[in-house]
Formats: sequence, C-alpha cells, structure tokens
Amino acid sequence: MGEGRSPVATPITVAVDAMGGDRAPAAVVAGAVAAARGRDLRVVLVGPETAIREELAQHRADDLPITLLDAPDVVAMAEAPLAALRRKRRASIRVAADLVAQGGAQAVFTAGHTGAAVLTAHATFGVLPGVERPALAVIVPAPRGAAILLDAGANVDCRPDHLERFGVMGAAYATVALNIDRPRVGLLSIGEEAGKGNDLVREAHGLLAAAPVDFIGNLEARDMFAGQADVIVCDGFTGNIALKVGEGLVEAVEQMLREELGAEVVSQVGALLTRRAFARFKQRVDAAEYGGAPLLGVAGLVVVGHGRSTPHAVETGIALAARLAAGGMIGRLGRALERGSGRQAAG
Amino acid sequence: MGEGRSPVATPITVAVDAMGGDRAPAAVVAGAVAAARGRDLRVVLVGPETAIREELAQHRADDLPITLLDAPDVVAMAEAPLAALRRKRRASIRVAADLVAQGGAQAVFTAGHTGAAVLTAHATFGVLPGVERPALAVIVPAPRGAAILLDAGANVDCRPDHLERFGVMGAAYATVALNIDRPRVGLLSIGEEAGKGNDLVREAHGLLAAAPVDFIGNLEARDMFAGQADVIVCDGFTGNIALKVGEGLVEAVEQMLREELGAEVVSQVGALLTRRAFARFKQRVDAAEYGGAPLLGVAGLVVVGHGRSTPHAVETGIALAARLAAGGMIGRLGRALERGSGRQAAG
Repeated sequence: MGEGRSPVATPITVAVDAMGGDRAPAAVVAGAVAAARGRDLRVVLVGPETAIREELAQHRADDLPITLLDAPDVVAMAEAPLAALRRKRRASIRVAADLVAQGGAQAVFTAGHTGAAVLTAHATFGVLPGVERPALAVIVPAPRGAAILLDAGANVDCRPDHLERFGVMGAAYATVALNIDRPRVGLLSIGEEAGKGNDLVREAHGLLAAAPVDFIGNLEARDMFAGQADVIVCDGFTGNIALKVGEGLVEAVEQMLREELGAEVVSQVGALLTRRAFARFKQRVDAAEYGGAPLLGVAGLVVVGHGRSTPHAVETGIALAARLAAGGMIGRLGRALERGSGRQAAG
Repeated sequence: MGEGRSPVATPITVAVDAMGGDRAPAAVVAGAVAAARGRDLRVVLVGPETAIREELAQHRADDLPITLLDAPDVVAMAEAPLAALRRKRRASIRVAADLVAQGGAQAVFTAGHTGAAVLTAHATFGVLPGVERPALAVIVPAPRGAAILLDAGANVDCRPDHLERFGVMGAAYATVALNIDRPRVGLLSIGEEAGKGNDLVREAHGLLAAAPVDFIGNLEARDMFAGQADVIVCDGFTGNIALKVGEGLVEAVEQMLREELGAEVVSQVGALLTRRAFARFKQRVDAAEYGGAPLLGVAGLVVVGHGRSTPHAVETGIALAARLAAGGMIGRLGRALERGSGRQAAG
C-alpha cells in the first residue's frame, strides 16, 4: 500500500467512485471539483467515462488535477452486493480499489453501496493482522469536540470478539482523527452496569475490559452525544439504528420547532435567530459535515460517504480520505493492532 | 383477572409500587396523590409502610382514595432481578402484582426495575395464549399523533417469532391506545428493502408479512418519528437504544441550541420564544409525558414507568394503567392474539 512507518508523500491521489450515492454522478463530480480546488490533492473520477466527462464539463475544472478512469458498471443501492460484484467485474467501486492496489492512488472515496464497498475493500486489500471484520467508523458530535462510533453499518451481525477489535481499531483511529492520546472506549448498551445488555454486549464487555484500550465500560445510548466516551463500540445494526434515529430526530425537531414557533405570535427577529441557530446546530450533527466513514481494518484506505451525500459531503469525504492517507492511517492502525495482540498474548 | 368480554367496572384500583424508580418513594407518592386527585381511580401504595406513610403525610391526601399495603423488601435497580426476587419474597413489585392477582386491584404501576417487573408479571399472571415473550410498548411522538414502539426493553435477545408476536400485540394495543382501526405495522431496520437488516430482522420480515396485521415492511430508523408506521417492531435491545438515543439527543439539542443562541447577539424576545417553543417540543418527546409502557402479553395489566420518573410521569403512568384497565385491554389483546393464531393456522 505504500504506507510504511512514515507518512505518505503528498500530494495524495484519491480514487473517487463517481457512481456512488443517490445523487451520482452530479453530486460526486461537483464535490470532487470542490475538493480538488484549493487543496493539495488529486482526484481520479472512476465511472462510465462519457457520462463523467459530460458532468465534469458543467464545471470549470480544466485547470484542476482531476483525471478520469473508465468503469462502465455500477452496483445499484438496491442490489445484493455479492452477486452484483461477481457479475460486474468493471464496477466503479472495484476499478477504484484496483487503482489504489496498483499504486495509482492512495485512497478510495465512495458514497455508494456500503456492502459493495466493504466486500470490494476486503477482496482487494485484505485485512490487517488480527482483524476479521472491518468496521465503518463515523464521527459523532459531542458537547466539546467529537467522538468515534463504530461499527456504523458494515457488520449487521457480530460476535463479541469483533466488538473487541472494533474497540482497539476505534481507539487507534481516534488518536489520528481526534488527536487524543488515550481515547476512552465505551460499549453502547442499555444500562451502565456490566451485566446490562444483550448476550453480545455482555460477552464483549469482558473482552474489552481485557483489551489494550482505556475501557470505561458500558455507555448508555442517552449519553451517546454527551462526550463521555471518545470511542463508542457497537455492532453495525445497532450503530446504524442509533445514527439514523439521531438524523431523523434532528429533522423532526426542526419541523416541530417550526410548528411550535409558528403557533406563537412570534417576532420575525426571534424566528430568524432560531432558524440560524438551528442551521448551525444541524451542521454539527449532520453527516454531511463529516462526509465519510473510513472502513477500519482493511489494508487499504477506503472512506464511505453517506448515500444521500451532497456535493459538500463528497468534498469533505474526499478531503478526509486524503488527510488520512497523508497521515499514514493504515500503518498506524496496523501498529496499534499489533500492540493490541501483543498485550493480549502477554496478559 | 376479571377482564371478560366487557370493560371492567370503575373506579379502577391501581396497585402502585411505591419503591420503584430513582426518586422513590417521594416522586411516586407525589405522583400517586396527583393521580388520585380529580380522577375516578383508587390507589394502593405498596412498599415499606412507615416510610410511605411519612411520605404521604407531606401531602394533603387524607380525603383521597389512597390506601397503603406493606411490603418491606425492594429490588434495587442494580440488582440481578431473578436472584433478588427469589430472595425477597415481599418485594414491593411482587406484593403489588399479588394484589391484582387476588382481585384487590386491576392494574400495577411501577417505575422500578424493568427486569423485576417483567419476571414478576410473568410469574404472577402467566402469559396470554400464543405469547412466549411479553413486550414493553411505549408511545413515541409523530408529526400528527403518535406511534407504538415495542419491545422497548423487556427482551434484549429475541427470536424472529417473538418479533412477529410483538407486531400482533402492538397492533391490538394500537387499536386501544391510539384508537386506530387498521394500524400499519413496520419493522425497524437499517434499510427499507426486505433483505436489509440483521439475521433477526430478515427472518422476522417474512413472518410479519404472513401475520394477520397490516405489515408495511421495514421502517428505517430515520423515519421512526415520521409517522409512517403506527406500530414499530424491534427487539428490546434495539428499541431501548433507539429510544434512549432520542432522549439523549433532545437534551443535546437543547444544550447546543442554548449555546448557539448564546453565541449570537440575541434579543431577549427571541431567546424566550425559543425556550418556550422548545419546552413544548420537549413535552411531546419526553417519556415523562407518556408516563409508562404496558407490558403486553401477560395476563394481567402492568404498566412500567421510566426509572427516572418525575411525579408528573408517575401520575400519567397511573392514569394510563387505570384507563387501560377500564378499557378491558387484556381481554382485547387476548382476542386479537386468538384471531392471529387462527389466521396463521388457516394460512
């Protein structure tokens, strides 16, 4: 992969799956143009060449370091990913990953089918030593700063030892993404006591307590946004539910606040201030601001964006991919996992 | 139980576990006094008699239909419920359930240990025909009206057939609690397509599609508060996580809005209006407003309140218990389950 003990040479090239997401390729191309403009990074747009070229022509992008790589096939959001990937050998996500494997780029960004991205990354790059299941790590807001939540949806059915690895990988990622020395790792559950939770969580609790991380025990879901943990560990089904409830509730809050304020004889000033305040709050919560989740545990850098990614989300996702590549994230993760296994064996 | 084909005679007597919840007995006694005042219901406060009597003396309650029933033992929130109940034969939750079993009351309200309440209800009343796992059903807000979510935490590990029964019971409860003729039943998952979800959800999808309910398929967690389903089915771990994320996020929204508005040069008018609007919004979301979740599937009426119940939440929980008893909820649920099994056998 080129990531050794020292950071990768810049500028980073990001292979962007131009066909990923509900608004592809328009939103992806627009986001890629914005990412390449004014940042020290290069973009390779991967997808059906004619369509991408036409889309790119909508932008003044001739002077930008953006190139095209033809990939005629697309894995649609509703497809079963394994079957689709077997059939579609030249799907955009595969061609993008192959480019990284061949050294032509240092990271993949896709806002497409999460399952297809996970399977492709696994098959193309393999996993880091000690990892069985890669996990998607998202950044969630906290009162001061942010926290990492994983798995956000790569593994809908997990074993306790998978959750233990998520804790180790999440802690390693937090040192890179949040710049925290000793990240506090919490296990998402329905009560703070060690005995609270389902079978999966109860068993994972013991494994995480023995893992080489600063484990603070169970974290109640109501404290997910309270900043008590820097790393929040859960299976991908639970993580996805928790995140999506959050997204949906922010929308519901917005609508209900509007209704409630509308029911008042409200001064234009008050309403305007509230709208502006809410818009800023929403930015903090909105997935669009964070743009993407790295797939931790594979031996190549893949950042998965939200399927409903806006151009701005694509832009920040590509920037995140470049930043993680430049910081040698895969290498750091690999070393953290090695230390983890060592300590475990010693313990 | 006394619930036959016709509604139970009023006034209803509710056996209230006076030692349930973080603020017991003060919050429970205060809530019981409020519930008995101005409503056509009677309350039996169950707990250590001297302590309850002292607490009751703080209120002007001499003229209210409130009596005391001594129960010296308490199951604490941190205890393992099965062991605690074996040891504590005169725990307040058991004595309260026994009173209902003996006909001295028609419903139990507790804001105490959920696990202890579930085990006690199961042991004391048994389950309705066709039910293996009782489920806690909570009411969640929707843009217009409300929806039922179950299981909210009684069963942290479920099988697909449990979820199918939750759908049938939830639909029957929705006809009573929400006054809806044909409740739309949705299965909480991470994607709308039938194939999306973990193993549990994928198998439950097929069973619910064949069940005698108006099944609308998977419901994405982001749409939990959007009013697309009247009944939201999930396992108790997922349900509890989803609800608690919602609670926590409302608190986080409140704090962040306050910070954001504080960061503006904001007119006092604007801030005041926002606070008032938010307070009203919070009432709609807050568990305190709904006060309690009936345990569906046991052959006796038990309403479980939030462990952090305020006096107001206790009051509405007791009122809910009385209303469900007066409406013959157990009988209606039993008949809905019978119809369910009949159609299943025929199908």
